[in-house]
Amino acid sequence: MSSVDQQLDDLRAEIAAEIPNDVSISDVTYEGPELVVYTRDPRTFAEKGDLVRQLAGKLRKRITVRPDPEVLTSPAEAEPEIREVVPEDAGVTELDFHPDTGEVVIEAEKPGMVIGRHGSTLREITSEVGWSPEVVRTPPIESSTVKNVRDFLKQERQERRDVLERVGRQIHREEMADDQWVRITTLGCCREVGRAAFLLSTAETRVLIDCGDKPGAEDEVPYLQVPEALGAGATNIDAVVLTHAHLDHSALIPLLFKYGYDGPIYTTEPTRDLMGLLTLDYLDVAAKEGRAPPYESEMVREAIKHTVPLEYGHFHVGDGYYNVAFSGDIHYDDTRLFNGAVNDFPRVETLVLESTYGGRNDYQTDQEDSERKLKQVIREAHDRDGKVLIPAFAVGRSQEMMLVLEEAMREGDIPTMPVHLDGMIWEATAIHTTYPEYLRDDLRERIFHEDENPFLAEQFNHIDGGEEERQEVADGDPAIVLTTSGMVEGGPVMSWLRHLASDARSTMAFVGYQAQGTLGRRIQNGRRELPLSDGDPTGRRETVTMEMNIETVDGFSGHADRQGLENFVRTMNPRPEKVLCVHGDESSAQDLSSALYHEYNMRTFAPRNLETFRFR
Amino acid sequence: MSSVDQQLDDLRAEIAAEIPNDVSISDVTYEGPELVVYTRDPRTFAEKGDLVRQLAGKLRKRITVRPDPEVLTSPAEAEPEIREVVPEDAGVTELDFHPDTGEVVIEAEKPGMVIGRHGSTLREITSEVGWSPEVVRTPPIESSTVKNVRDFLKQERQERRDVLERVGRQIHREEMADDQWVRITTLGCCREVGRAAFLLSTAETRVLIDCGDKPGAEDEVPYLQVPEALGAGATNIDAVVLTHAHLDHSALIPLLFKYGYDGPIYTTEPTRDLMGLLTLDYLDVAAKEGRAPPYESEMVREAIKHTVPLEYGHFHVGDGYYNVAFSGDIHYDDTRLFNGAVNDFPRVETLVLESTYGGRNDYQTDQEDSERKLKQVIREAHDRDGKVLIPAFAVGRSQEMMLVLEEAMREGDIPTMPVHLDGMIWEATAIHTTYPEYLRDDLRERIFHEDENPFLAEQFNHIDGGEEERQEVADGDPAIVLTTSGMVEGGPVMSWLRHLASDARSTMAFVGYQAQGTLGRRIQNGRRELPLSDGDPTGRRETVTMEMNIETVDGFSGHADRQGLENFVRTMNPRPEKVLCVHGDESSAQDLSSALYHEYNMRTFAPRNLETFRFR
Repeated sequence: MSSVDQQLDDLRAEIAAEIPNDVSISDVTYEGPELVVYTRDPRTFAEKGDLVRQLAGKLRKRITVRPDPEVLTSPAEAEPEIREVVPEDAGVTELDFHPDTGEVVIEAEKPGMVIGRHGSTLREITSEVGWSPEVVRTPPIESSTVKNVRDFLKQERQERRDVLERVGRQIHREEMADDQWVRITTLGCCREVGRAAFLLSTAETRVLIDCGDKPGAEDEVPYLQVPEALGAGATNIDAVVLTHAHLDHSALIPLLFKYGYDGPIYTTEPTRDLMGLLTLDYLDVAAKEGRAPPYESEMVREAIKHTVPLEYGHFHVGDGYYNVAFSGDIHYDDTRLFNGAVNDFPRVETLVLESTYGGRNDYQTDQEDSERKLKQVIREAHDRDGKVLIPAFAVGRSQEMMLVLEEAMREGDIPTMPVHLDGMIWEATAIHTTYPEYLRDDLRERIFHEDENPFLAEQFNHIDGGEEERQEVADGDPAIVLTTSGMVEGGPVMSWLRHLASDARSTMAFVGYQAQGTLGRRIQNGRRELPLSDGDPTGRRETVTMEMNIETVDGFSGHADRQGLENFVRTMNPRPEKVLCVHGDESSAQDLSSALYHEYNMRTFAPRNLETFRFR
Repeated sequence: MSSVDQQLDDLRAEIAAEIPNDVSISDVTYEGPELVVYTRDPRTFAEKGDLVRQLAGKLRKRITVRPDPEVLTSPAEAEPEIREVVPEDAGVTELDFHPDTGEVVIEAEKPGMVIGRHGSTLREITSEVGWSPEVVRTPPIESSTVKNVRDFLKQERQERRDVLERVGRQIHREEMADDQWVRITTLGCCREVGRAAFLLSTAETRVLIDCGDKPGAEDEVPYLQVPEALGAGATNIDAVVLTHAHLDHSALIPLLFKYGYDGPIYTTEPTRDLMGLLTLDYLDVAAKEGRAPPYESEMVREAIKHTVPLEYGHFHVGDGYYNVAFSGDIHYDDTRLFNGAVNDFPRVETLVLESTYGGRNDYQTDQEDSERKLKQVIREAHDRDGKVLIPAFAVGRSQEMMLVLEEAMREGDIPTMPVHLDGMIWEATAIHTTYPEYLRDDLRERIFHEDENPFLAEQFNHIDGGEEERQEVADGDPAIVLTTSGMVEGGPVMSWLRHLASDARSTMAFVGYQAQGTLGRRIQNGRRELPLSDGDPTGRRETVTMEMNIETVDGFSGHADRQGLENFVRTMNPRPEKVLCVHGDESSAQDLSSALYHEYNMRTFAPRNLETFRFR
């Protein structure tokens, strides 16, 4: 008998000893980090509200109770009873019954009302019908990604349970190693921006954090081939954690499955969906540009299937033996879309900190000034009867822009005019609104009320009519175009340049970081002759001459500036002992490392790629 | 056809084009780093002395020419002809004919006379008989290790050629990786003394440098299990380099073969033989102490079989793309046994430097003062009618002591009395004298003349009569006992303590570093009750009370002191850009690192184990 089977047997005996005699346990298994308890008496569990909490405390496990499939009423019987219990205002849009696990997935416009105060409505459902309810939000804006992901996970439900069971057994296996140590190996994004990838390893476990591409340098991928990563075989890695969905953090996650990785991806649900959206587009762009895609779309599906959703957090190694926080990309202050990054931790010894704007002169205009400048740029273009073309990342920056533009028009700071959203922006916005829990507090509240949801403002138009619609927009009245890609490296922005580049009345406004080697950076630097082969149906190489006004509006970056990074560290609680400055070019990372060392007397480093730091 | 086969075909064609038409080439293969050319006309090659040198220059390879076995005369015919050519004074003791490769191994007391000026006698042999001669020295002191190693290699000759051919093909394979980088991973001996092990890696190649044990902490072995070492499988390592034979550098080399390693060990011939001697003893000691030996003696033979002898050198990575020097254990000044360490290199960017005595107060008495003190300790014991018991490493320290004692007696500084050599000291001495090329210049000259060879002085007695002989010595007149182990961790020194501990007339003199946790260190620190279970035939635990005088004579260490280490770096040519201070306890390594940084403005580090440094 394996040690995990023995453990499950022991747990089953412990549970039996803890619960009342009239409650039966038919099976106990692991699914990911959860201990799943199947019972023939789900109603009793539901009625004794504290029983699960007591068990969880006693066993020190996260516990999920499910009904033994044998005791379930039929879905046909259960459905009307559930609809009876749930308030009509919850807006239930779908019920999905899964007899194999006794779960019913309830999709509703207002999930909170299905859950009830402290889960009271959920317990009531189980008391009535025995089924174990799970709640998901009906996307407020229809999202094909969310629908596809949910349909796919439904279809792959059995295989996904196998994945989760395997992951669960892996998590709960006996620890074998005598040694205790904690290391980080840098596999990318050191002294450079892009290809984020770190390996956090102990004697027992190796966790990969992020696996991104490098904008403007497609062939520079994370150093996955070294023995400490995948060189030792894909099973060398026990888990993958994805901090967020931007391609410089996520693009090569699916590649891991091509290399035979078969373990969990820990990330939030919105990041899972956005990763799905962005990586499929990444494959599409590669194909359009005639590059061999590094993996097939099947691998994106594998990544989604292997995702174990988590909320934000940091790494406790070995029950808090050592604690590492990875910043991902952060803002210290609130933005319009997100709350400022959390920097209050139970414990943390080492911080791995992004340094994109860590250079000694990297002070960004504050958001208020930036917005004032953007509005002025828009007004001027409007006065010239021109358009404003804004290349932006679909994820994050575009939603920030939408929020700025919606408010500016609502408050009359700029004329109300159409804002055309091209590329994946509409879809990315729909995903954001499906998970408002992850957005800034007051925005979340507005999304919950349909008539206040800023993303539903009528001036927003989803470009879904292709070239013809673009041509119409280009020929029409003043308007704003928000389009991908954010660094002018392919995508519909190339089409928009074909339509608008020669229009001296119009303005191209950069609102995000333009990496070395990208066309965006070259336009910023004054390049006038632009090669625009991408998107031309004849495949012909075409050059257009840039006549648009070029404006750069700082301050909307997805990254904190130097002051923000310092504030983040200064106010961090507890203050870490060590900081690794990563995800910035060489001088930015070194400047920040040196400043943090001198100001706060911490041990700081500006690592190179392929180094390993031992922390304990 | 593999790329290496293609390469060999090309080389064969190039050779054919270069040499005269009447010289035939029957085969071309790789053996380790050498290109072996078989010819039906070995005599022509021998007569045209420059031909091989020209070919080597043209092809940029090390070339060995051998006769096609088909054209060989019989050994019975060849032997008298060879004996005719070689001067009688050379003292030929054995001729070994190997018809498979056309080689004849000539063992002689004076190898130089078999070689002749610039190899003239060797070429004459080939001209006469066609066979390709190889010369080895007849050990001046009979050595069972040297004999066993030579017999074993003779017996395994065919398999060894397979190993060498595999190694050769590996060395000459096409380079596959686009990336260029150079890294060192610390697998042991960082902020500690013992378990030396480093991994030098590039995108194509991983080389393990040393693999030792840790005296006084048998369970602390190098971190071989991490993915970048053997965690990724034994074939992850392409080559092993052994700096010297001390067990803290060599003890776990044979373990690699148990783990499936099948590649070359690069080291010098004397180090190969000493490693064989010491690791077999290491297994023996483990068994005696009731510990499970980590590998079997068969693995020691595998290590010997896989050894590719080299002379001293440092690492040129990728034809000099990056150059790293590993100090091993060093002395800056000459000792009696060795010349001071070479610190003049064609190129070197990084130095990995031992720091055993790198602490800010680690100044050792200079050798002259040390010798004066040792002689005084000996005279005093002699005056008390006592003995002097000197625990010493068999390899290195013992030979230093023998040289000191021989001179002191010859010059009348101490009374001439027997010096008993116990444990492996005699054998280790025999190995040293077999390879005098590696010893200090003037010592080498003395060894070449039998009547001046200091190791043959008549007061040296090899204890080969076991307990009975020891008892006689203990009961007899004043004498010196030089015995293993050097840190009083098992070996015959334990027997000697049983015989001598209670003798207040006698002295125990420590002449080497005593690591934390060893019995030697505890005796030095004043411990009086000594547990001596080891070596007691009844297995009973026995305690003796220490009555001997305890003396510590500094200055005979195998390690440079702080001043020596600084001198080594200061006068190094060229001066390296970076220094990693290793093989010293935490404060020693950090002190040295800090001092070198401040004095010479180099980038210096005191790594921890399990870190990786990227150099380029």
